Amino acid sequence: MVATKMYELGAKANLIRTLYMFGLQQAETVGEENVFDYSIGNPSVPPPQAVSDAIVELATKYSPMEINSYTPAMGLSEVRQGLADYMNKTYGAELKADNFYLTCGASASLSIIMKALIEQDGDEVIIIAPYYPEYKTFVTVPGGKVVIVPPDTKHFQLDIEKLEAAITPRTKAVLINSPNNPSGMVYSAETLTKLGDLLREKSQELGHPIYLISDEPYREIVYDNIPILYVPKFYKDSIILYSYSKSLSLPGNRAGYILVPGGVEDGKDVYTAVIGAGRALGFVNMPNLYQHVILKCMGMTSDFSVYDQNRKTLYNNLSEMGFDCVYPSGAFYLFMKAPDGDDMQLMENGKKINLLLVPGTGFDCPGYVRISYCKQPEMVERSLPVFQKLRDMYK
Amino acid sequence: MVATKMYELGAKANLIRTLYMFGLQQAETVGEENVFDYSIGNPSVPPPQAVSDAIVELATKYSPMEINSYTPAMGLSEVRQGLADYMNKTYGAELKADNFYLTCGASASLSIIMKALIEQDGDEVIIIAPYYPEYKTFVTVPGGKVVIVPPDTKHFQLDIEKLEAAITPRTKAVLINSPNNPSGMVYSAETLTKLGDLLREKSQELGHPIYLISDEPYREIVYDNIPILYVPKFYKDSIILYSYSKSLSLPGNRAGYILVPGGVEDGKDVYTAVIGAGRALGFVNMPNLYQHVILKCMGMTSDFSVYDQNRKTLYNNLSEMGFDCVYPSGAFYLFMKAPDGDDMQLMENGKKINLLLVPGTGFDCPGYVRISYCKQPEMVERSLPVFQKLRDMYK
Repeated sequence: MVATKMYELGAKANLIRTLYMFGLQQAETVGEENVFDYSIGNPSVPPPQAVSDAIVELATKYSPMEINSYTPAMGLSEVRQGLADYMNKTYGAELKADNFYLTCGASASLSIIMKALIEQDGDEVIIIAPYYPEYKTFVTVPGGKVVIVPPDTKHFQLDIEKLEAAITPRTKAVLINSPNNPSGMVYSAETLTKLGDLLREKSQELGHPIYLISDEPYREIVYDNIPILYVPKFYKDSIILYSYSKSLSLPGNRAGYILVPGGVEDGKDVYTAVIGAGRALGFVNMPNLYQHVILKCMGMTSDFSVYDQNRKTLYNNLSEMGFDCVYPSGAFYLFMKAPDGDDMQLMENGKKINLLLVPGTGFDCPGYVRISYCKQPEMVERSLPVFQKLRDMYK
Repeated sequence: MVATKMYELGAKANLIRTLYMFGLQQAETVGEENVFDYSIGNPSVPPPQAVSDAIVELATKYSPMEINSYTPAMGLSEVRQGLADYMNKTYGAELKADNFYLTCGASASLSIIMKALIEQDGDEVIIIAPYYPEYKTFVTVPGGKVVIVPPDTKHFQLDIEKLEAAITPRTKAVLINSPNNPSGMVYSAETLTKLGDLLREKSQELGHPIYLISDEPYREIVYDNIPILYVPKFYKDSIILYSYSKSLSLPGNRAGYILVPGGVEDGKDVYTAVIGAGRALGFVNMPNLYQHVILKCMGMTSDFSVYDQNRKTLYNNLSEMGFDCVYPSGAFYLFMKAPDGDDMQLMENGKKINLLLVPGTGFDCPGYVRISYCKQPEMVERSLPVFQKLRDMYK
C-alpha cells in the first residue's frame, strides 16, 4: 500500500549507518572508550562562538516576527547579497544576490538541482567514483540515470579519458565533489582545467551545455595551504552546491545554497527551475533564523586544526605500520588500502576489535576503507595500537 | 535544458502571490496605509515570548554541538515523546514517540506523505474543494492523480455523496483540511462521523485502506469555544499533518510533523516509507534548534484574540453591508460570496480601490473570495469604508 522504492529507502540503512549503530551497541557491551568509531562523518568541532552570539542577538534584539516569518523562497535578499559580496571578494567572482538560492542544506541542494534539471527518464548524470552514496538516490528519484566513472586509483584525481567515454547525447550534468568524500582528495588546477576543456568540447559537440555540478560542502577544509579553487573559472557552465554543515558545524540546522553564476548557459532558466523544484518538493525556504546567522558569520569557519592534527597522526602512523594511505589534502577523511585488496573483510576484521572503518565498496571504490577522522584527538591516539592489531592480522 | 514542469512552477506565481506583489507595488504609489491587503495568509501575531526565551536558553545553556548537530531523521526522541505525551493528555490519544516523524513544516509533510504513499502513475488522491491550491502540486509531482470533490456551498462541510462518487479502486487517500483554508469552516463531529463511516465501508469494499490525510496547520485556531476533534477517533486509518507555522507563528523556521497513529493499517510500512521519502527528497531532519524550541513550548500558542477580533469586525460589518459571508469557525479566513457570483470580477473591482481579495476560483470554488484577516485590527477598521465602496459597485 506504500511506494515500494520509498519503503526500501526507509527500511534499508546504508553501510555507514549500520556500522555506526553497531558501534553504539558495542559501546554498551565493552564500554564507549573501547570502541573506535571512524564510521560517520559528523563534525566533531563546535561552531565558532559567533554562531551562539548571533542566535542570542537575533532572539533578543530583533523582532520575533523578523526572525520567524516566511522569507522569499530563494532566501532574504540581504543574505544573498552578503554571499555575493563575500564570494566576489574571496574568489574574484562576479556574482549578484540573484545568483543564489538558499537551501535547507546539501541534500536539499542535490535533490532540488536534480529535480530542476532532469526532464525525463533517461537523462543522464555522471558521477565520479569514489562518491557519496546518496548521490545515486538524488539522481534516480527524479527519474535520472546514473552513469559512473570508475575511480582514478593512481592519483584520486579524475580519469579524463574514462569521463569522456561516459559522456553520451543524454548527458545532462557531471557531478563532482572536491574536497572529496571519501578520498580526502582535492582536485588540482590541472584536473579542473582538463575537465573544463573536455566539457566545453563535448558541450559544443552535443549542441547543449553539460552542466558541471560542484558539490562543495568541504570547500574550506583543505590542508597544507593549498589554494581553494573557484570552479566556474575553469568552466563557465558550473553550478555550485554549498552547505554550512561542515564549515560552520551546523549540520542539524539545514543551511546551504545553490549558486547559478551569471555566465551559465540558460542560467536564468536553471534558476527558475530551481525555484520550481524547491516549491514542488515542499522546501518553502531555508530556516529564517539561520539565514540571519550565516550572514552574521560570513566567512567564518569552525576551528579545523583538530582535523589537521588527526590527519597527520593517522596518516603518519598508519603509513609507518605499513598501510597504504591516500595522502589527504582536504575534508576529514583518510582513504586507506586494504592490504589484501578486500575492503569488506578489512571492515569485518576491524569490527572484531571494535575499530569501525567504512568499506570503499559503499562508495563504488572497492579495495579501500574510509576513516572519518572528525574525532577527538585523544581517541585517535588511543586507536593507534588497535590499528596495529589490525595490521598484524595481515602478516 | 531544464525540467519543463519545474520551470513552469518556478515561473508562474499563483494568484495569491500575484495579488500580494500588486499590493506592494500599489503601496509605493498610493502609500502603504491606503492598501488593504487581505491576500496572504501570514500570521500577524508574534510567537509567544516563550519562543524567544527558549532560543536564548538553548544558545547559552546548551552545548553548541547539542543544538547544531544532526538529529535522527525522524527527530529527537525526547521531542517526539513530548509530542506523544501532549497529544495523549489533550486528546485522549494513545500515541508513542515512534508515531511521530518531525518535518520541515506543512509543505514538507505534504510532499513527503504523497511521495511515501503514491506507488505509481494514476494512484488517486481525493481533495475536497475549496482547498489550498498547492495540494495539487504535492499530489501530481510524485505521479499521483488529483480527484476533486466539488464544494458543499450550503454548509461548507463535506458533501458525502459527492465524495462517495469520487472514490475508485485507485483511491489511495482522501486529503482534508479543517479548520479550512480558504473557507474558515471547521468540520463537525457529524461530518467526521459520516466521513469515517464512508471510508470504512469503501475500504472494506476495495480490500485496501483508503488513508485519510488530515492537514491541520490551523488546528488550534478555532472560535466560539468549539471543540478540537481528534480525527483518528472517527477513522482509525488517519494520518495527521501538523505545522507550527500558524499555532506558534513560526512559518519561516520550518517546523511540523507527520503523525501515523498506532492503529493505522500497515502503519509501520507507511512510517518507513515516510522515512524513505524524507531521505529521497533531501530533508535530512527538521531544524535541530527548533525541535528543542517546540519541546519547550509544547501546548502553547500565539495569542489568537486578534484574529477573533478581526473575524467579528469583518463578519458583522460585511454582513450588515449586504455581503453574504460564510460564518468562520476557524483559521483566519473569511469566505465571502461575490454579489453577482463573479469572483474574478470582484477581485478586479477590489483592486481598483486597493482592496485585495483572493478569488475562490484559485481554490476551485468560484463565486467566493477569501479574506485573510491575519492583519492589524486598525487596518481592518480602516478597511470597512472601502468594503462599503466595493459593495456600492453592486447596487
